[in-house]
Amino acid sequence: MTIHPGFANTPEPPYYAVIFSSLRTSGDDGYADTAKVILELAARQPGFLGEDSARGEDGFGITVSYWQSLEAISNWKANSEHLAAQRLGKTRWYEHFELRIAKVEQTYGMSST
Amino acid sequence: MTIHPGFANTPEPPYYAVIFSSLRTSGDDGYADTAKVILELAARQPGFLGEDSARGEDGFGITVSYWQSLEAISNWKANSEHLAAQRLGKTRWYEHFELRIAKVEQTYGMSST
Repeated sequence: MTIHPGFANTPEPPYYAVIFSSLRTSGDDGYADTAKVILELAARQPGFLGEDSARGEDGFGITVSYWQSLEAISNWKANSEHLAAQRLGKTRWYEHFELRIAKVEQTYGMSST
Repeated sequence: MTIHPGFANTPEPPYYAVIFSSLRTSGDDGYADTAKVILELAARQPGFLGEDSARGEDGFGITVSYWQSLEAISNWKANSEHLAAQRLGKTRWYEHFELRIAKVEQTYGMSST
């Protein structure tokens, strides 16, 4: 049982979402440790607003990170430690992934829909 | 072990994403059956492009559905069977949820990043 990080506490829109859908390979192979380090690193980047993440027992997962601007996303993508993790993601950790960058325009919470 | 529906096969952007992050209450209470029916119903709506979904053992999950337009999302939100499920979601199935509507502007697959 993993502990989820809770709901991202984002500001009023507009802001940006990076939607990362992925299917893990079998075996950990350093994934869990690196994922933890990379999330901590992301959280210290300028413009990072929060993150939601879930992965089922079948290995399919979605991580959505929220950012103030496209520039913040671009800077994070080019971060050297993150680049190293991206390479390992492609070669080792993910069977497949898809990444989408989207501009959040509207939000509803449980009490307001 | 649940079978994930695979990666949504979406067209070139722009299109829209509905990012639904939720924490389930304990117990099924009709959730699994209704979720299946509602997904099948969503898939038949005009403008539906696909869906990715993951939920961890801790009950925290993310479902992202993709749509051609804000109008398609609005029509689906107002669908009567979906409205009934939304009510049960609030009163029974979710401890908490957050919903964001976002315009997908850029995409990267595993081979192109």
